[in-house]
Amino acid sequence: MTIMNAGVDGGADRQENRLDRLVDLAASGRDQDLSEAVAALHPADVAELIDAIERVEIKGKVFGVLAPDVAPTVLSLVTPPSRERIVQHLSVDQLRQIVLALDSDDAADLLALVPGERAQAILAGLPGPLSARIQQLMRYPADTAGGLMQSEYAAVLAGATVEEAVEIVRTLAETVSDIHNVFVVDHRFHLLGVLSLAQLILARAGQTVDAVMDRQVISVTVSTDQEEVAQLFRKYDLLSLPVTDPRGALLGRITIDDVVDVLEEEASEDFSKLSGLGQEEPIFDSPLRAIRRRLPWLGLNLVTTSLSASVIGLFQGTIQTMALAAALMTIVAAQGGNAGVQTLTVMVRGLALGQITAVHARAILIKELVVGCGNGIALGLVAGIAGYFLHRQALLAVVLGLALLVNYLVAALVASLIPLTLHSLRADPAVASSVFVTACTDLCGFFAFLGFLSVGLSYFG
Amino acid sequence: MTIMNAGVDGGADRQENRLDRLVDLAASGRDQDLSEAVAALHPADVAELIDAIERVEIKGKVFGVLAPDVAPTVLSLVTPPSRERIVQHLSVDQLRQIVLALDSDDAADLLALVPGERAQAILAGLPGPLSARIQQLMRYPADTAGGLMQSEYAAVLAGATVEEAVEIVRTLAETVSDIHNVFVVDHRFHLLGVLSLAQLILARAGQTVDAVMDRQVISVTVSTDQEEVAQLFRKYDLLSLPVTDPRGALLGRITIDDVVDVLEEEASEDFSKLSGLGQEEPIFDSPLRAIRRRLPWLGLNLVTTSLSASVIGLFQGTIQTMALAAALMTIVAAQGGNAGVQTLTVMVRGLALGQITAVHARAILIKELVVGCGNGIALGLVAGIAGYFLHRQALLAVVLGLALLVNYLVAALVASLIPLTLHSLRADPAVASSVFVTACTDLCGFFAFLGFLSVGLSYFG
Repeated sequence: MTIMNAGVDGGADRQENRLDRLVDLAASGRDQDLSEAVAALHPADVAELIDAIERVEIKGKVFGVLAPDVAPTVLSLVTPPSRERIVQHLSVDQLRQIVLALDSDDAADLLALVPGERAQAILAGLPGPLSARIQQLMRYPADTAGGLMQSEYAAVLAGATVEEAVEIVRTLAETVSDIHNVFVVDHRFHLLGVLSLAQLILARAGQTVDAVMDRQVISVTVSTDQEEVAQLFRKYDLLSLPVTDPRGALLGRITIDDVVDVLEEEASEDFSKLSGLGQEEPIFDSPLRAIRRRLPWLGLNLVTTSLSASVIGLFQGTIQTMALAAALMTIVAAQGGNAGVQTLTVMVRGLALGQITAVHARAILIKELVVGCGNGIALGLVAGIAGYFLHRQALLAVVLGLALLVNYLVAALVASLIPLTLHSLRADPAVASSVFVTACTDLCGFFAFLGFLSVGLSYFG
Repeated sequence: MTIMNAGVDGGADRQENRLDRLVDLAASGRDQDLSEAVAALHPADVAELIDAIERVEIKGKVFGVLAPDVAPTVLSLVTPPSRERIVQHLSVDQLRQIVLALDSDDAADLLALVPGERAQAILAGLPGPLSARIQQLMRYPADTAGGLMQSEYAAVLAGATVEEAVEIVRTLAETVSDIHNVFVVDHRFHLLGVLSLAQLILARAGQTVDAVMDRQVISVTVSTDQEEVAQLFRKYDLLSLPVTDPRGALLGRITIDDVVDVLEEEASEDFSKLSGLGQEEPIFDSPLRAIRRRLPWLGLNLVTTSLSASVIGLFQGTIQTMALAAALMTIVAAQGGNAGVQTLTVMVRGLALGQITAVHARAILIKELVVGCGNGIALGLVAGIAGYFLHRQALLAVVLGLALLVNYLVAALVASLIPLTLHSLRADPAVASSVFVTACTDLCGFFAFLGFLSVGLSYFG
């Protein structure tokens, strides 16, 4: 009996110890001990350990000692790079057995990693209807409801009894994991209602499913975006979501465990794009791949900062008469950038969570301008007064305060409008927005400060 | 019969129309029509609409026409600000009825919003054991397993039959929502196993729960952090997670719907902290609250940028002889900041998802330094060569390229070490890390560029 208490923080250390032990056993060829050590672990732990093993042949050895009923699950849980490496070393027959044991969504994900000819050979040996279903699933884009769904679900016709529904669940649960609901459909497979397993257990004998089912069914079509799918699960507290064709006929369902991964993925994606990483970067990615991913955004940033720097070039005369200006202009630019990224963060999350759309543009713009004004007056005064006492130059102090205020307003404007515009053009509002926003605030910050200063110098200098 | 197909994008527009309609009906006092319009909606939609209504008295009116069996659910689904406003206008008796209808975790969250005396009056009218359970839940910090759990769960003693387990589920499901599992315990309430409802339906009559239960039980103690709880749900594909006291006795359970909210919350929190917002800011927050939240970080940024600006002050002589330097130094600082935020994003997500710990520090540092070196050589060469052709000054070009390389390495170093250090001190690695990292890259960028330049000028100038 294994009771696993994953409490207070021991988790990471324990996995570390297990990893060392498994690698030792595999490297020294003690297959029997390795097999026993692996059998004592939860499949999710085995998957995590296989991901953490560096050498491919050790990954393969650990996977090789798994019991036949556990191996498919583990293979569906490891990360795609590990999966690809393990799959390369399996025969067509082994892969076919694994595909047969998996739910159709996991089977489709697995086959997508296998080169065309081998995939055909695997599919050819499967029962016809299963093969057709898996091939259909492989055609949907990965980030849509079709790409997330599996074609196994429990459904009964309206008018069936509760006992008939229970019988269907019983038959299905022997081969399919995670049955949470029974869908009630008409003869054209259109959804009429849904029943949870708890409702099935609660129902009295002889009742029809129509009498106990929930008639408010939330569903999506195969082409719905995964971000919208995730938000529906969140809003309606769903465990599974039926997916239909464009005409409303039931094709499959998405389960909550896949959506939890989507939620993490979408959040990390917004996060990464906003800070100019493009795609999410795995933490232990190779330096070369990391460079390839980060370099384009840094290059873009080099172009935009060179543009703002060329604004400074226009005011070389001013800087030569007052070298202190070169120092203070950087404060104005940095503050604008910081305020812009704050606004941007609120906007990008709000858009991702579906809390705002283009109709809110005016209200948001007003809020952000008021916030920019408030922060600008407060910090403009502080910086201006501090500047006066440090350098005893009234003109410089006034210019610093004014330029800060202007740059906060620019930050509010561009950091609200850029994501709203991208969103209304159906582009991702997070894509490199921060690069563009800081480009604007740098440029306007330098221009406002040096511009005010040269005007001021020409009148009072 | 209401079939809701939430497919392709109509969602936001439709809610917009519904909002206008409800506000019209409420404002014109057509209570009967309002009541019918609200009754046709899903509770989650009603909650979303109440959140979107601006005027408090209209919020209250819409809530007031809800059926008594729906009102508690809606109240548990609205955002805390709406909840607080609605609760202010309800009597102690009304609140007591709502508390009785809610699961204990939602009841505790609701009572936390009620001022002390009224809360005592509500609790005094509840059955003794329920009142004690809710008060106990209110004592756990909100971001721990104790703060997330509810004290209603289905449990049977080892040795019970499957029929007895079904009977317990049936009794409980009449009053408690979301029963996903039955926990199997010994006489001291220690966990021995767990059964899903599907397993219960699959089991043969007369079998004992010991024969069918899953013996690998994942559990946490009341003090486990909510971020760790969310990661366990994600890793092990859980629907509910038992929570024990420090000695291992079962106290309650956490359900997946609460964890989905935690996942969003934690991602938004990291996101917000990283960009210097401190806490997550609701998109339609009042400008005054938004200013209060953002001002401290902008103030801190003002201090750090003033420090970097004072570095520039050290080189006033250099800038006066070569005003172009003032322009080019900003490129070096901005590039370092950008590279630092890229590294920081990877680090903060990796730490939040539990993918890295302090033991990986060396490997990460090496990776980041290699990446910094690669990007630095590539972009340092580009910038140096471009600088040479634009300005025909070999010294300036060499200094620009070198300073860029140095600043990329500084960015890699500080953006890896600051979050790792914060994490090992058990502080949140996301807190304002970007403010500190950009402070370092600004300071080092200015210093490296202007420093190299003045040394160069004194030898070759």
